[in-house]
Parts: sequence; C-alpha cells; structure tokens
Amino acid sequence: MPNPTAAILLIGDELLSGRTRDSNLHFLAGELTKHGIDLGEARLVADDHAAIVAALNALRRAFDHVFTSGGIGPTHDDITADAVADAFGVAITQRADAMALLGAHYAREGKDFNEARQRMARIPDTATLIDNPVSIAPGFTIGNVHVMAGVPSVFQAMVASVLPGLTGGAPLLSQSIRVERGEGEIAAAFGALAAEYPDLSMGSYPFNQNGLYGTNLVVRGRDAARVAEAATRLAGLFPA
Amino acid sequence: MPNPTAAILLIGDELLSGRTRDSNLHFLAGELTKHGIDLGEARLVADDHAAIVAALNALRRAFDHVFTSGGIGPTHDDITADAVADAFGVAITQRADAMALLGAHYAREGKDFNEARQRMARIPDTATLIDNPVSIAPGFTIGNVHVMAGVPSVFQAMVASVLPGLTGGAPLLSQSIRVERGEGEIAAAFGALAAEYPDLSMGSYPFNQNGLYGTNLVVRGRDAARVAEAATRLAGLFPA
Repeated sequence: MPNPTAAILLIGDELLSGRTRDSNLHFLAGELTKHGIDLGEARLVADDHAAIVAALNALRRAFDHVFTSGGIGPTHDDITADAVADAFGVAITQRADAMALLGAHYAREGKDFNEARQRMARIPDTATLIDNPVSIAPGFTIGNVHVMAGVPSVFQAMVASVLPGLTGGAPLLSQSIRVERGEGEIAAAFGALAAEYPDLSMGSYPFNQNGLYGTNLVVRGRDAARVAEAATRLAGLFPA
Repeated sequence: MPNPTAAILLIGDELLSGRTRDSNLHFLAGELTKHGIDLGEARLVADDHAAIVAALNALRRAFDHVFTSGGIGPTHDDITADAVADAFGVAITQRADAMALLGAHYAREGKDFNEARQRMARIPDTATLIDNPVSIAPGFTIGNVHVMAGVPSVFQAMVASVLPGLTGGAPLLSQSIRVERGEGEIAAAFGALAAEYPDLSMGSYPFNQNGLYGTNLVVRGRDAARVAEAATRLAGLFPA
C-alpha cells in the first residue's frame, strides 16, 4: 500500500521578503519522513487572503494531508484561520472551547483577556483543536488540513500533538555514501545502478569541502533490505 | 507603476525528505527585495517530471519572472532542463555554445568530457545561457523563466549573472521596532495604526529570548518617507 501523501503551506510576508528564514518546512519534512508520510510539495505564500485560499484548495485536493504554518496569532496580519474557513466554505466564530482555554490561561498569568487575544479563539466550524502546550492558543484540524503556528517552538509542539494521531506508512529509509570524485565522473555507473532499482530513489549531491570536490550519493526507499543491498553495491562501485 | 513580480521553484527530492535544508530561497528573496522585484510565491517539488512541468506552467503564467533552483547537473536525477523544455513545448539538444564552454573547461582541467558531463550542455531551443563563473556548466533563461543550479555557491553566482539584466522597481524598504511586550498587548494599537497606512505592510513577529517575551514590529513599503513616518509613530506608541 502506498504511503499517505502530504503538502506544507507556509504563510507569511516575512518569508517572501527575505526577513525570516523559515525552519518549519525542514523540521516537518524530517518528521513526516520518519512517520511514513510522503511530502510531495511545499508552497510559501504571502499574508494574502486570496492567495492562501487558492493554495489551500489546490493542495488539500491533491494530497492526503496539508499542514500549514503561520498567521494564527492576535494581530491584524494573522488572517489564516479566516482564509481556511473560506476555503472550506464554513463559518468562523470565537469558539467556546478555545475561549475557555485562553481565558483560563490569561487568568493564571494575570493578564487581560482582551479583544486581540480573543481573536485567537476564532476557529472554523467543524474543526477540532490542536493542543499547544507552549503558549496555549490552539491550532486546529479541519478536514485534511492541520493549521499550526509559525513560531518554531510552537509549530514543533503542535506537530508533536498532531502526528501521532495520523496513520503513517513505512518510513522512508536512506543511506548515504561519500565519494571523493565529482558528479561527472560517477554519473554513468551511478545512473546504471539506479536503473536496476526502480523501487528506490537515488540522488547525488555534489560538495566542495576545503577545496576537495566530491559527491554524496543517497539511496532512499521503504524496504530496508533493498536499500542496504543497493548501498553496498554503490560503495563497491566507488571504493574510497 | 507596480513592481515586477516573481516566483521561485525549488526542485529536489532531498528538500522534501528533510535531508537538505534549502538556503537558496532565503538568499534570492533578499536579493529580489533589494532589486525591487516582489516575490509572491515559492514552491518546492520533487525530481518528478510531471510535477515540475505543472508547477512551472502555473507560475510562469501568474508572475513576471520565475527562478528555478536544482536539477541541472550530470546525473540521472537531473531532469529540470528536459521538464522546462516540455513546459514550453520546445525541443532540447546539446547546444553548440554550451558544448564549447564545457569542452574548453574540461580540457583545461585535463578531465574527460564524457557523456554525463555532455548532458549539462542540454539546453532548450530559444533559451539563452546564464553564466556560471564557479563551475562553468551554464544555467539558462527561456521566456520569463531563469533556470539555475541548486548548489548554493553556484546558485548565488547565477543570480548575480541574471539579476542586473532584469528591470527592477522601487526596492522594498523596512524598519523594525523591538517591543518588550507580547503580541496580544500591542495588537489593538498596532492594528489601528496599520489601518491608517494602507500603502504600507505591517507585520508583528513574537520572540522569546532568555525568558523575555516580546514582539518585533516591521513596517514595509516603497516610500522611504512614509516608512519612516509610520515607524516613528509606532516607536512613540510603544516606548521602551
């Protein structure tokens, strides 16, 4: 049975202006790989209602799961929850369960549960909340879309809340072989070996370290025995 | 006149498996911002012919420029040039100009100009070459699409070859104000000020540094006087 598939949608002007270097994509890509969910695509869009709705609708129809990051805080540029509600054609309100969580949190902290903070309780109808042990304000899952915060520590905590509940497949395994020769020298033999293993994916990644040119060859697949066999043959082709 | 728009398409299995953390997007986002080209979207797709063609056709029709990264080396998993040719419906051959560049390079280095290396001279018809001062193998521009290498040092050199030739607009300017208060406390006043400046974009980015919660407020726009005025008012709203 093929693994479930996924896409990631990162939302935020700051990612496209070069101000912020995203780290959530790389983190989640690694977690999905371990969990046996195949990440097929990622997109970054601005804090723009129409752009978020269009990307979300394209991705949720093409993949088993969509994970979003960013735009669910208390300020005017946090428009993700409203865009998700629009994409699904459902209403969005300040939900009682989210209001209760946030109200109790700000009471404990002795802080005003003001209108801006109440915005974080806006949750589309039919969604279920995603636990946020870091800063309480919840994410949510609606249909096959998991809506999470952009702040990396909160994003990572939400991923830990969501992922165990999703059915995974066989984790994608990989083995790397470091070859101190350029890609152009090893390409023919590497390509011929890759053609013998259509069930595996093999990639080559050139490096230049302290003036030394070389290539990391990576074998990826779900069958540990096949990955090991191919990696052994690859190492034999290019002895150190 | 509005600025030209752009999208970035990053290509490579290694980005989606979590093996490699991309750095080209963040680099190019910063360069485009300085050059006055508005980055509207970015996508990451696997080394998959159909996925590359579909993403490229969607992006090149929606944006003034598309920049791609990855998949133009000598190995079997380097399929970007063929996918780009397909997207444009043109033939792809080993082009004489690229063959001459690469042939001279490998002759100088005393290396075999073998079949794999000759693959890097495959260029779609009607494309013009992008100079690669780092490792010679060229990128190319076809229509509004600029096809570049994935290795960061080569990508950066190719960006430096391409960008000065593109018409830019007014660079996006930004000013940041650090406020040692949480987003929920400043959201109302910040949102009200942002509403007075519809020509500017204002974002808030929470941080937690050594146990201190705070927010970086960012004002972005193309008119230096407007950005400065809004930033001054913002600083006045939230004195240190």
